[in-house]
Amino acid sequence: MANLRAVGKSVDRRDGVDKTTGRALFTSDMTFPGMLHAKVLRSPHAHARIVSIDTSKAEKLDGVKAVMTHKNGPKNLFNAAAPMFLTVSNLERVLDQYLFDEIVRYVGDEVAAVAATTEAIAEKALSLIEVEYELLPAVLDAEEAMSENAPELHAGKGCTPEGKNIPGEIIRIPYGDVEKGLKESDVVIEKSFTLPIVKQVQMETQSAVAQVSGSGDVTVWSTTQTPHPSRAILGQVFGIPASKIRVLAPPYVGGGFGVRIGLSGLAEAIALGLALQAKRPVKMVYSRKEDFIASDTRHPATVTVKLGAKKDGTFHALDLKGIFNTGAYCGFGTELPGVCGAMTLAIYRIPHQRYLGHSVYTNRTSSGAMRGFGNPQGNFALEQVVDMMADALGMSPYELRLKNIMKVNDPWCLPFPCLSTELAECMKQASESIGWEKRESLKASAPHKVRGMGMAVGTHVSNAWPFCVDYDNAYFTVQSDGTVHVASGVPEMGTGVCTSLIQIAADAFGIDMDRISLSFGDTLTTPFDIGSHASRTCYAAGLAIKEAAEDARAQIFDYVAPYFDVTPEMVSLQDGYVFVSSLSDPDAASVVSLDDVKEHKQSKVSLENIAYHAHVRNKQFISTGKIVPKNAPPWHVCFADVEVDTETGKVDVLNLVAAHDVGTAVNPMIVEGQIEGGVVQGLGYALTEEIRYNDSGVQTHSNMHSYMLPTAEDIPPMKSIIVESHDPTGPFGAKGAGECSLVCPASAIANALANATNIRFTELPATPERIFAKLHPQN
Amino acid sequence: MANLRAVGKSVDRRDGVDKTTGRALFTSDMTFPGMLHAKVLRSPHAHARIVSIDTSKAEKLDGVKAVMTHKNGPKNLFNAAAPMFLTVSNLERVLDQYLFDEIVRYVGDEVAAVAATTEAIAEKALSLIEVEYELLPAVLDAEEAMSENAPELHAGKGCTPEGKNIPGEIIRIPYGDVEKGLKESDVVIEKSFTLPIVKQVQMETQSAVAQVSGSGDVTVWSTTQTPHPSRAILGQVFGIPASKIRVLAPPYVGGGFGVRIGLSGLAEAIALGLALQAKRPVKMVYSRKEDFIASDTRHPATVTVKLGAKKDGTFHALDLKGIFNTGAYCGFGTELPGVCGAMTLAIYRIPHQRYLGHSVYTNRTSSGAMRGFGNPQGNFALEQVVDMMADALGMSPYELRLKNIMKVNDPWCLPFPCLSTELAECMKQASESIGWEKRESLKASAPHKVRGMGMAVGTHVSNAWPFCVDYDNAYFTVQSDGTVHVASGVPEMGTGVCTSLIQIAADAFGIDMDRISLSFGDTLTTPFDIGSHASRTCYAAGLAIKEAAEDARAQIFDYVAPYFDVTPEMVSLQDGYVFVSSLSDPDAASVVSLDDVKEHKQSKVSLENIAYHAHVRNKQFISTGKIVPKNAPPWHVCFADVEVDTETGKVDVLNLVAAHDVGTAVNPMIVEGQIEGGVVQGLGYALTEEIRYNDSGVQTHSNMHSYMLPTAEDIPPMKSIIVESHDPTGPFGAKGAGECSLVCPASAIANALANATNIRFTELPATPERIFAKLHPQN
Repeated sequence: MANLRAVGKSVDRRDGVDKTTGRALFTSDMTFPGMLHAKVLRSPHAHARIVSIDTSKAEKLDGVKAVMTHKNGPKNLFNAAAPMFLTVSNLERVLDQYLFDEIVRYVGDEVAAVAATTEAIAEKALSLIEVEYELLPAVLDAEEAMSENAPELHAGKGCTPEGKNIPGEIIRIPYGDVEKGLKESDVVIEKSFTLPIVKQVQMETQSAVAQVSGSGDVTVWSTTQTPHPSRAILGQVFGIPASKIRVLAPPYVGGGFGVRIGLSGLAEAIALGLALQAKRPVKMVYSRKEDFIASDTRHPATVTVKLGAKKDGTFHALDLKGIFNTGAYCGFGTELPGVCGAMTLAIYRIPHQRYLGHSVYTNRTSSGAMRGFGNPQGNFALEQVVDMMADALGMSPYELRLKNIMKVNDPWCLPFPCLSTELAECMKQASESIGWEKRESLKASAPHKVRGMGMAVGTHVSNAWPFCVDYDNAYFTVQSDGTVHVASGVPEMGTGVCTSLIQIAADAFGIDMDRISLSFGDTLTTPFDIGSHASRTCYAAGLAIKEAAEDARAQIFDYVAPYFDVTPEMVSLQDGYVFVSSLSDPDAASVVSLDDVKEHKQSKVSLENIAYHAHVRNKQFISTGKIVPKNAPPWHVCFADVEVDTETGKVDVLNLVAAHDVGTAVNPMIVEGQIEGGVVQGLGYALTEEIRYNDSGVQTHSNMHSYMLPTAEDIPPMKSIIVESHDPTGPFGAKGAGECSLVCPASAIANALANATNIRFTELPATPERIFAKLHPQN
Repeated sequence: MANLRAVGKSVDRRDGVDKTTGRALFTSDMTFPGMLHAKVLRSPHAHARIVSIDTSKAEKLDGVKAVMTHKNGPKNLFNAAAPMFLTVSNLERVLDQYLFDEIVRYVGDEVAAVAATTEAIAEKALSLIEVEYELLPAVLDAEEAMSENAPELHAGKGCTPEGKNIPGEIIRIPYGDVEKGLKESDVVIEKSFTLPIVKQVQMETQSAVAQVSGSGDVTVWSTTQTPHPSRAILGQVFGIPASKIRVLAPPYVGGGFGVRIGLSGLAEAIALGLALQAKRPVKMVYSRKEDFIASDTRHPATVTVKLGAKKDGTFHALDLKGIFNTGAYCGFGTELPGVCGAMTLAIYRIPHQRYLGHSVYTNRTSSGAMRGFGNPQGNFALEQVVDMMADALGMSPYELRLKNIMKVNDPWCLPFPCLSTELAECMKQASESIGWEKRESLKASAPHKVRGMGMAVGTHVSNAWPFCVDYDNAYFTVQSDGTVHVASGVPEMGTGVCTSLIQIAADAFGIDMDRISLSFGDTLTTPFDIGSHASRTCYAAGLAIKEAAEDARAQIFDYVAPYFDVTPEMVSLQDGYVFVSSLSDPDAASVVSLDDVKEHKQSKVSLENIAYHAHVRNKQFISTGKIVPKNAPPWHVCFADVEVDTETGKVDVLNLVAAHDVGTAVNPMIVEGQIEGGVVQGLGYALTEEIRYNDSGVQTHSNMHSYMLPTAEDIPPMKSIIVESHDPTGPFGAKGAGECSLVCPASAIANALANATNIRFTELPATPERIFAKLHPQN
């Protein structure tokens, strides 16, 4: 670790200049000769059968080159959330979606698509399509959808003893004996919480360009977070083998936050279907409204917590339930409830635990993955109850948490050990920063205002294994001038992959970052990788790169050892030079060529010289890293200091402090960015963001005016603290850093609101309207 | 071999439909937001010093974004022919070129380049550049350039005891004792021959688009045949490490024939230099005239043969000399003379041989590589003398050749053995086809016409090793549905790589071609490959792919063996199914899943099932093939039947028959295309093609009107015969097939002309003017 030269440094992002100068290219920038533009006709009804559809007028419109409906679209069922990496026992049960179906199941569902020479012509063509619908009974509420009389959204699917419209399996996590534990507890608190529909609102909407070659090979430029899995799903939709499909994200993706996993939006499939028909390249760019209504949201949920504790504050039993409204198609709806349970149960040492969770089909836009993936929902519920327990026990929320948080090697319900946590240190530093000791003596800024402070803690994963398939591979090729190309399947969606993975490669191999390039996000030219999600990129893709680099080092040591007249184990590589490990001061050593080093044992040889030496002897050092990651918990604490205007219900967040144990921070600047971004998204989750529906199933908050995303003006003073640990399973000790920062902020803010107002908010977002109503129940 | 399903079949080319429908994309199709267009100001003088150059007016022109001259261009010397793979002992001696130099050395040499928002503005800007030249003495003739009083083209370079202006090393191939051999010969014939300047005239002119990212990473889309070596040279020119440069040929290259090796044209370097300056993408597309005057031609040469034979026709001694006019910069000029010697000496068993060859700098457009690479020049000379020897000995040219041609394992001067030749069979089949037995009784079609028949034989290589560095690598990744991606560094310049390499992969691995895709021609995403030249693609890149496929098979056998309850050696993979090798009829066997096969040993398991089985267990089968090819001689014979109009000198070629031993013909249709194309280029070499210069060093044949390329109308009846051998060193027995077909046709046609006219033509092309002059020396 003493020799790390790149890992741990806040080096500039490789994509920084291009992104800030507008030179970076995204999918929507791609153009090709003869390219067509696609537009989609969407259902105005929440649930209906298409009785007839007449596209003849649209087809005749000059400039229209392809029209697709359920009549001529592909007939293969798929699951938008990559069945490829679902590990459900019965895959058939979750295949619930056609690209175009005779039944439409939410307002926005795809009815027809048109490809034309211009966007305007495509729009015009949509207006010429005549559709006759037979309206079907719709259901928007999850509880209602489970009832006996509810319409069945997917015939023959989702009927369980627990209720109707439940896709896939009900997730149960048993641990200890929760009934016994609750009985043995001195205090038991039970409460239910309602979590809203929120949206990722990534900068770039869902987009794709599809091209089909004369030999039937397909290329899809896509805004995907998961090139390899997305390709597998496209293959499933169209019945095309993986060898004939290339999915790539070129070169950048404008944000993701989970909305680009698998086929959360259908831009890729629609563009491809039309391109296959038109035999011309087709571009499909979702409008912002389409992105709202027709790509996955975060799962709204009802989460119920029953927490039991001993008088001294020792947690003794936790019974957790989660019901998730998954919308029209289940996607990740069968996977996400499990992560909610596992992550919420993993925070505290509790001997008796139980979780039960599942999704429910309704006639709404599908819910899917969003940063945190079920975890913020469970965390919010549990962390409210923990504060309630503190009140009940007369303890400080801080001390109660400190007493119960997981420690290294504590037993827990997860199928991997906890080998690192600096959560206690995170709590210490963050509480000092925000001034937690003044919590009982906070002063509001005006008589009609009240002030409070709250906190919340949480954890997450560093990759998807063993919840889903998760493995990673990398190619590592040393060029003839000693520089290096690395290939990884992950795309760069703004998380800093194209910088941080090179930092890992540089230290693993022993050369400057400047001498390494990375190719990524392209199924044709990179080995399999499950994508950028589950906070896994640095951890899992980084591990594969590290392994590949170490193998290349070993190959070089084998090659040079005879020239040094030593064994390969006796050679080192650092800063681009190879030398005998016993050399006392490599930096000061003179440089000689490999052919001369036998006579100059105290000298070093440049990698450039070695690589060229091998090259002219017909040899390249090429390695492949193949890893199955273990897993590791990052830890996070968030503190909030808030003031509430009791006359308006308006909340001013005065300060937010987040501290994060990410293992080794490979690039602290990028980690800070991850923390800040997550905390701001948490702020929106807590106070402003919500998509609502009217009774007809129409989203009433489907644009940037009505959907209240925090803007730069809304961001309060905030501080990000990195507390490093060293996890033995991660590359150079690193753990996941992408999601955990969004897990706790809403929980902390709500706890601060409760501290300020003495009201426990059980429903997010805590808008001024809701707060006012709670403050003035008589109105 | 019995089980080959893909190799040996004339399957359709994967690029066929796209290329015939105009959908295929080439470098000149690439466009990017903000892209600029480059134009080049070229020297009007054959040799001059730039006394002053004023670009200020050009710089001020609206729309001009970058101007480059020797004053602000890169200052690194390079060699356009990839010093990367030259094995000359003193690299410094052949580094003779700057991107822009104060001295211009040929008419067309680069003086300045401009990048502007439109081509028209760039052109206009060129006209605003003011240059003052000091004229220097120029030399166009090779003999003259070696004389004592000749101007020195590259100060301090090229002075040898043999003469001035000789770049690099003089190539000498000693073999036996040639002086003794000549003394011992009964008949000795000596003759000198003059070979013209001809041009590749590939369909797509030299083109490039260069893009520089904000972090300094460079991408160059290029019409290169050699992405990896071209990248190395660009790195050398600009002092940029390989890791920061990506060169790719996307997706196709419009023909090559040698003109795209290394930096034969400077489109890549000019576009990159301007892009670095302008910080915007820059496109540079050579006009046809620029392609003529400013990218490499074939080397014109003077070749002298002294052949000694015993009375019975046994060749006993061969003394060969070649002097090559390499033009202004030596490029391949130090490498090519050696290939001329080695290939010409390798045709016949001759115990005493000697070769001496070298290039000479002159103030002409640089010569470089063209299909055959020095071999057609030597072959022409030797094969004329062999016919003269047949006349002198009173033998049939056919019998004389048959008596002396190389046989398997005969000793020869080459550093690898001859392990296969079916040249005798080629001669037999081709002679039968053309009706060689009627040679002595041919009838002309009119009294003023004479008719004759001639033949010539030749060989070539299957890759560049051991003349140059030559090794190859491939990635082979099995996807989770059992289909395969292969990555190879070779580009597709029209030779069928994208089809034939997949045929090799299919049979090496054991699945259908449809289930394999190939990524190629991209330095970022493929391992090192020396490019598409030296007839090496199928042979060397194919070997790397075959090795990778075999390694992936072995990984799969290791994985499945426990399920089959056998050892890995007892498992087979064929047509996409894995089964125990002892299975009597795999085609008829039932299909079961891997988990069930232990109970059903007589069944087979699909690769799809196995790959997915591994995938959900976090495993991908990934292999890397790394090979150093041996080498193998393809063999070729060409027969020509010609008629000469003695009143005009016009030649009608009545029939051309070529037979070619290419080892195993991986795709016979592609091989036939290679033979036909080569023979037609040989026809042009023989009769019509020539670039001439006026005394000022200006090309007088620098366009498609004056340069007489054979068109469809000029192509005579012709037949291509493939005679397969099995070379143990090649993939499935394959050898090189790209160049050999252009080695002999001109030799055969000239022998036919001699047979018809009794005149030995010592200068090509044998134009009507030259023939008339020889037929009527009195005029």
